[in-house]
Amino acid sequence: MAADTLARALADIVGAGHVLVEADLRAPYETDWSRRFGGAARLVARPADTAQVAAVVAACGDAGAAIVPQGGNTGLVGAGVPRGGEVVLSLRRLDALGEVDAAAGQVDAGAGVTLAALQERARAAGLDAGIDFAARDSATVGGLTAVDAGGRRALRHGTMRARVAGLEAVLADGGVIDRRTGVLKDNAGYDLPALLVGSEGTLGVITAVRALLVPRLPERVVALIGLGGVGEAADLLARLRREAPSLECADFFLDDGLQLVLDHLRLPAPIEPRPPVYLIVELAGRGDVTSELADALGDTDALVGADGADRHRLWRLREAHTEAIAAAGVAHKLDVGVPLPALAGFLDAVRETVAQAGALAVLFGHLGDGNVHVNVLGAEGDGVDAAVLELVAECGGTISAEHGVGVAKARWLSLTRSDAEIAAMRAVKHALDPHGILNPGAVLA
Amino acid sequence: MAADTLARALADIVGAGHVLVEADLRAPYETDWSRRFGGAARLVARPADTAQVAAVVAACGDAGAAIVPQGGNTGLVGAGVPRGGEVVLSLRRLDALGEVDAAAGQVDAGAGVTLAALQERARAAGLDAGIDFAARDSATVGGLTAVDAGGRRALRHGTMRARVAGLEAVLADGGVIDRRTGVLKDNAGYDLPALLVGSEGTLGVITAVRALLVPRLPERVVALIGLGGVGEAADLLARLRREAPSLECADFFLDDGLQLVLDHLRLPAPIEPRPPVYLIVELAGRGDVTSELADALGDTDALVGADGADRHRLWRLREAHTEAIAAAGVAHKLDVGVPLPALAGFLDAVRETVAQAGALAVLFGHLGDGNVHVNVLGAEGDGVDAAVLELVAECGGTISAEHGVGVAKARWLSLTRSDAEIAAMRAVKHALDPHGILNPGAVLA
Repeated sequence: MAADTLARALADIVGAGHVLVEADLRAPYETDWSRRFGGAARLVARPADTAQVAAVVAACGDAGAAIVPQGGNTGLVGAGVPRGGEVVLSLRRLDALGEVDAAAGQVDAGAGVTLAALQERARAAGLDAGIDFAARDSATVGGLTAVDAGGRRALRHGTMRARVAGLEAVLADGGVIDRRTGVLKDNAGYDLPALLVGSEGTLGVITAVRALLVPRLPERVVALIGLGGVGEAADLLARLRREAPSLECADFFLDDGLQLVLDHLRLPAPIEPRPPVYLIVELAGRGDVTSELADALGDTDALVGADGADRHRLWRLREAHTEAIAAAGVAHKLDVGVPLPALAGFLDAVRETVAQAGALAVLFGHLGDGNVHVNVLGAEGDGVDAAVLELVAECGGTISAEHGVGVAKARWLSLTRSDAEIAAMRAVKHALDPHGILNPGAVLA
Repeated sequence: MAADTLARALADIVGAGHVLVEADLRAPYETDWSRRFGGAARLVARPADTAQVAAVVAACGDAGAAIVPQGGNTGLVGAGVPRGGEVVLSLRRLDALGEVDAAAGQVDAGAGVTLAALQERARAAGLDAGIDFAARDSATVGGLTAVDAGGRRALRHGTMRARVAGLEAVLADGGVIDRRTGVLKDNAGYDLPALLVGSEGTLGVITAVRALLVPRLPERVVALIGLGGVGEAADLLARLRREAPSLECADFFLDDGLQLVLDHLRLPAPIEPRPPVYLIVELAGRGDVTSELADALGDTDALVGADGADRHRLWRLREAHTEAIAAAGVAHKLDVGVPLPALAGFLDAVRETVAQAGALAVLFGHLGDGNVHVNVLGAEGDGVDAAVLELVAECGGTISAEHGVGVAKARWLSLTRSDAEIAAMRAVKHALDPHGILNPGAVLA
C-alpha cells in the first residue's frame, strides 16, 4: 500500500485533519525533546478514542506499516519517536479523565492525560497520585505506564507498575483487551496488563489506565544530611526504613555535582566542612513527622526543612542538578540501577572510567531504589556509554531503571538480561506481534 | 520413556530418596487439603535447589511428561495437585532464607519458605512481610507468588505481586531466568517476573523470590461498625481512605454469617440492634492511630479495640467465619471480585440464586478490594457455582480474586476475560511452553 493510500485509509478512521503528512506538521512528533533521537515519520495519526486506535493499528497491520506509539514525547531513550518511515500513533487526544472512585481509591485516565492532570484530579478528591517527576506537565499516563516510570517517590509507593489497577490496550492484531474493573485483586488468568507495563509500546498500545491512588499525606518534613560515603548513606537509609515508616524519598548526590548546582544558582554551600556524599530524605504522613524524623535520626546532624519554603530550598539542591548540568554542556544521560552494596564501588569506577575518557561524570539519584543517573559531560561518541553500562553489568545492576531501553540501549540489553531471558522476551514479542509492527527496534534490537 | 525410566533419570538428579513412586509415599502430594481436587501422580520429585529443578524440568520435557509444581499444598482451586499421571514437582526443599538487606528492605526466599518464616525473618529485622493470611504456616513463598495471593492487608500493601522485587524461575525448556538484583526500579526489557506472578505454574516454575518488605507499624487499632447496607459501608470506606492514611484492612460480613459464628463460638451479638452489614477496619502506624481513627469516624458508632486482646476479639468475629461454615457442612467456596458500586446488587442476587437452589450462601470478604468469599452450604453438583460466577460476570467482576483459576475455574475463564484476552494468553502460553508440559489444564482449559 502506498503512503497516500494508507493516509487515506487512516483519514477515514480519524478524520483528515488528524492524519499529518506534511513535513512541517509532522516535525513536532519526529524528534524527542533531548534532540538525541528521531527520524522522519511516514505520517502521524491522531486518533480520538480506543476504537479509532484499534482501527488504525489494524489498518497499519494490513499495510505492513510499522507503528511508533507516542504520548507526551518526554522520553529519554528514543522509544516514542520514529527511526525513519514509521507511522507515529499519537495518543494525546485520548485525554478523558474520569471521576475518582473514592471507595476504591481509583480513577480512569486516558493514555493522553498528563501526570499533572491526574495529580490534580486525585488531590481534588483528597487523595494523591503517588507518583511525581519533573516532566509532569507533558508526560502522559500512557507513556508513564508503557515505560514503567519511577521518580523519587517510588521508594514508598513503587513505580508506575504499582499504580496501575488495570488498563486497556490495543494489541497488534487490532484486538482490544480491557481490564479496568476496579477490583484490586484479580488473578483470573495471566496478568497481561502487568506484561504491558514497561514494554514500551512493543507488545500493545496502551489506551487507558485505571490508576490506583494513595492517601494524601499532608504533613511533610525534609532533611539534608552530609555523609562520609555511600556506605554511611546506606546505613542511615536502613535505619530510616526501620524507624521512620513515613519515609517517602531518599535521594543522594555528590559534592562535585553540588558544586555545579551552587555555581549555577549562586548559592553558598549548605554544609561546612563539605562532605563527599549528601542524602536528602522526605517523610510524609498525617501525624507528627518532624518528631518521627528526629527520633529516627538520633544524633545525626541534619539540615531540616519543615515548612514548604525550607523543604523546597533543600530539594532545589538535588533537583537543580539537571539544569546545572545542561548549563555546563550537552550530557549523555544514562539511567541505571545498582544494588546498594555495590554502589560505592560503582560510583568510583564510573568517575575513573569517565575521567580516563577526558570527560566529567555527574552522579546522583534515588538511593532507596539503587537508581543512579549518570550524566557524562564532554564525551565523544558512545564509547563511554558502553563502558558505564558494562560497569553496571559487572556489579549486577540494570542498564535501565526508570527511563526504559528504547532504541538507545537495545543493543546493550544482553548486559543485564541472560540469553534465557532474552529468548523468552523474543518468544513473547513474536507471540503478541508476529509481524513486528509495534515499535520495531525498541527494547529488542 | 516408561515411568520407571523417568524415575531413574530423576533419581540421578535429585537422589533416589527424593523420587517418590510408591502410592503411600505419593499420597500426601496427590490431594489438596480441601479434598475437592486431586489425582494419581506418575511420581513426586523433590529437588533441593534451582539447578535440580531445571534438570528435572528438562528431563520431563525430554520424556514428554507433564509437571504440576507444588508448594505448601494450601491452594483452593486444584492448581497444585495432579489431575492424573503428572509428575508432581515439590518445591518445599527450596527453603533457603537469606538475611534481610536492611537498606533495600528486601530478603531472598526460596520457593519453599513458608509465609510464617518470611514474616518472622522480616520482624527480626524491624520490618514486616506486608502480607498475611490464615494458611501462613504451610503456604509457601513460591505458591503465594504463583497464585498472586492476597489476604486482608492487600488494601494497603497490594497483593503478593507488589511484594515481589524480583524472582528466579525455571522455564519449560529448563532455562533459568533470574532477576533478583535488589534494584527496585528495573525496566530493562519485559517484566517476565510480573508475567509469572499469578500464572499458577503454567509458564514457569518459580524457584526463589526476592521479597520487598514494608515498615513495621507497631501501633494498631481495630473498629467494628454496624451499617445499614453495603452502600453505607462503601461510603465509610471512602471516608477512611481520605481521612485515615493508616488504614490497612477493611473487611465486611453480613448478619446471617455472623449468626453462624456466634452459634459456633457461643458468643452474644456484639452490636444490638443487629445491623445487616458489618465493617471491620484496622489502622496501623507509628503514631496515634486511635485518634486518627476517631477523627475519621466522626460520630459513627463503632466498637473499638486498641489493645491486642480487644483487637483479636473483634477480628475473631470475621475470621471464625471459615470454621463456623466448616462446622455447618462442606461448603463450595468461590473467591470472586466485584466492583464496589455493584456489590450490594451482587450480594442480593447471590443469596436469591443460592436460595432457589435450596442452599445457603454465606458471604464475607475484603471490602477494600471488592473481594467476596462466597460460601455455599448444601448445594449439589456445580450448577450453583456456575450461576454465581455468571452473576459475577454480569456485574463486571472477576471469577477469581486471590485464590486463582486452577482447574476449578478454568472452564469459566471466558466469563471474565474477552476472546482477545484469552487468545493473547494462549499465545503467551504457547510461546513459553510450546509442548504444554507445565501444569496442563490449569488456568487455560
